[in-house]
Amino acid sequence: MTAHFLSHIPCYKRSLWASDTYSDSFRRICSYKIHGVSPSTKYGRFTMSAVPVTGVNGKARVERAIIPTKKQYVDPFRQGLIILDGVGYRQTIVVRSYEVGTDKTVTPQSILNLLQETALNHVWMSGLLGDGFGATHGMIKNNLIWVVSRMQVQVDQYPIWGEILEIDTWVGASGKNGMRRDWEIRSHTSGIVFARATSTWVMMNQKTRRLSKMPDEVRGEISPWFIEKQAIKEDCPEKIDKLDDNAKFVNSGLQPKRNDLDMNKHVNNVKYVGWMLELIPEECLENYQLSEMILEYRKECGSSDVVQSLCEPEDVGIIKEGVQDDKEVNLSDRCSIGGGLGILNCLINEGTLKFTHLLRAKEESKFHEIVRGKTTWKKRINHHSFCG
Amino acid sequence: MTAHFLSHIPCYKRSLWASDTYSDSFRRICSYKIHGVSPSTKYGRFTMSAVPVTGVNGKARVERAIIPTKKQYVDPFRQGLIILDGVGYRQTIVVRSYEVGTDKTVTPQSILNLLQETALNHVWMSGLLGDGFGATHGMIKNNLIWVVSRMQVQVDQYPIWGEILEIDTWVGASGKNGMRRDWEIRSHTSGIVFARATSTWVMMNQKTRRLSKMPDEVRGEISPWFIEKQAIKEDCPEKIDKLDDNAKFVNSGLQPKRNDLDMNKHVNNVKYVGWMLELIPEECLENYQLSEMILEYRKECGSSDVVQSLCEPEDVGIIKEGVQDDKEVNLSDRCSIGGGLGILNCLINEGTLKFTHLLRAKEESKFHEIVRGKTTWKKRINHHSFCG
Repeated sequence: MTAHFLSHIPCYKRSLWASDTYSDSFRRICSYKIHGVSPSTKYGRFTMSAVPVTGVNGKARVERAIIPTKKQYVDPFRQGLIILDGVGYRQTIVVRSYEVGTDKTVTPQSILNLLQETALNHVWMSGLLGDGFGATHGMIKNNLIWVVSRMQVQVDQYPIWGEILEIDTWVGASGKNGMRRDWEIRSHTSGIVFARATSTWVMMNQKTRRLSKMPDEVRGEISPWFIEKQAIKEDCPEKIDKLDDNAKFVNSGLQPKRNDLDMNKHVNNVKYVGWMLELIPEECLENYQLSEMILEYRKECGSSDVVQSLCEPEDVGIIKEGVQDDKEVNLSDRCSIGGGLGILNCLINEGTLKFTHLLRAKEESKFHEIVRGKTTWKKRINHHSFCG
Repeated sequence: MTAHFLSHIPCYKRSLWASDTYSDSFRRICSYKIHGVSPSTKYGRFTMSAVPVTGVNGKARVERAIIPTKKQYVDPFRQGLIILDGVGYRQTIVVRSYEVGTDKTVTPQSILNLLQETALNHVWMSGLLGDGFGATHGMIKNNLIWVVSRMQVQVDQYPIWGEILEIDTWVGASGKNGMRRDWEIRSHTSGIVFARATSTWVMMNQKTRRLSKMPDEVRGEISPWFIEKQAIKEDCPEKIDKLDDNAKFVNSGLQPKRNDLDMNKHVNNVKYVGWMLELIPEECLENYQLSEMILEYRKECGSSDVVQSLCEPEDVGIIKEGVQDDKEVNLSDRCSIGGGLGILNCLINEGTLKFTHLLRAKEESKFHEIVRGKTTWKKRINHHSFCG
């Protein structure tokens, strides 16, 4: 494949980087030259199909974003390339201004966004992508979609605004019917690993909403991409307790907004993490930073679900001293949380903090679980302590 | 400048794009070769300064994200380059999976994020950037920060997931003490213009929070970048009425979350737009899409402000027929809004819809304005109508 595909790259590079007298007309001329054919047919030889856009301006959008139907080894626009002997994907990314928080480091939510983005671009490059959210052609034929069942992210150091990152991702088998997807986020400059992540995925029938075995057709598509390499090695995954009404912190009445829904019209995973992290007391965030997050997904959250977020610090004995008697803390009254936990940091400002989380939605008279979570927080380095 | 700077590019390109047997060791070797010097000094000859990271891991982060202190003409990592005879900036961007909504088109909020990103990268490339949010060295010396006073965005067509965009941005004078910043978002493939935007900016003293004249020192820095070119030509900007308690739709008790704060520890503009757009009835969004948005900023929103979002459809006479008698609609009860406005689309499903917006925060017994807005919505094409 590579030879004639790569032949366009020198022109692309010239067009984009090598001229400071670059003008509109030059851009258009070069865009014609890039592949040596006119723009309307330039992807023709790679047998591309257009991204299906539902509902809006249907026909007019065809041919605007081209999903490859054959494996590509390099994508200069996504700054992505196939690695690991042809089965892994690497993307170079500059941390954007709106991906960082007040301390100018990437937020946990932005990290999850980047994991999703690189995973989808991996499938995009593979030539297997059939629809908008990572399903292969064989999956679509069998009415199957990917469902994430577990996600684990370990962050040693948070990337900062403007930093250049390399994100590697690859996949492997998980049991008989599942898939593991791993990631490694590194500094492009130093090669230092900032974060590692692993996840497991299963297939769900889109109509019956029941989990499905992996059809042979789909196994045939994806198993050639499977490797053994693991970003996080774990002998025995930690069990996450199920929280109940006795949880220390509770935030009720959470409702997805339109902007929280993704292409699948479901509440995006990143929103879940937002709902979980909002319960972490302000003073914990000042002195600690999230070093590990484990999420166990139980059920989808629909756009009409009303969600409750529960959170329990791991060492209840210590925390109790600093917490108000009220079990349910109203998050809209931020002072009551910050104030109530003021003593927390003085008691356990060494080492790590751990919290157990649960998101659940009310269904008739009882709750159903959406996601269980566990977060680990490490003391920030070189940061002033509120407790001297 | 360009000659020796550009000399590193062929190696960079080779490292990133031209090998499908690319390995970790190759990456490291090439990263040393890129500039012909070791990583720790490779930016030395361009007199770079590190991004200041406040509070967290201070010293360890130095030299990780390097802000140029001299003008750069090209940035291969940001896929950016200087255009318009040396004063404008162009960046190539692929629409990411998490920047689109349920219809797979870029959300208005993502467009605003990309405008912010390219504007900051323009300043980044200029060599003038002194701190994290667009202030020049001269501004920092004078304790000045940029404050946006007006933003106008026109969208003809929404980019879709995976589409390759070119975003151009440039600046000009606005009165004696202000700056205009414009943008144009195009399809990289066809050159078709998707969106245009213009904004005006003034300087504020960071300590007194009062607006400031532009010091000569700062004028000297930025005025060489000013050009006359305008993305949106307007003879006389439309006035936006100030809404009051009589507004048709009201959403109260809005509170910024930690994740809504930007590097300046202020509520990010994009959050404002979210609060405004949440009041647009569901059925309007189904049949119409945002084609223009004008924002007039009045006062900053702090992290402790409790905000009220007001919204009034322009043609009250028509709207009234479809609206419930209650003036204050509780947004948490979505059905009441959707149901109450069911007739709206039947009455005015031709042409455009307009809404006036106001965000305000309570300060003691009265409200102060944060931002006034006006949104224009055009009927979606090729979309089924709910009203036949």
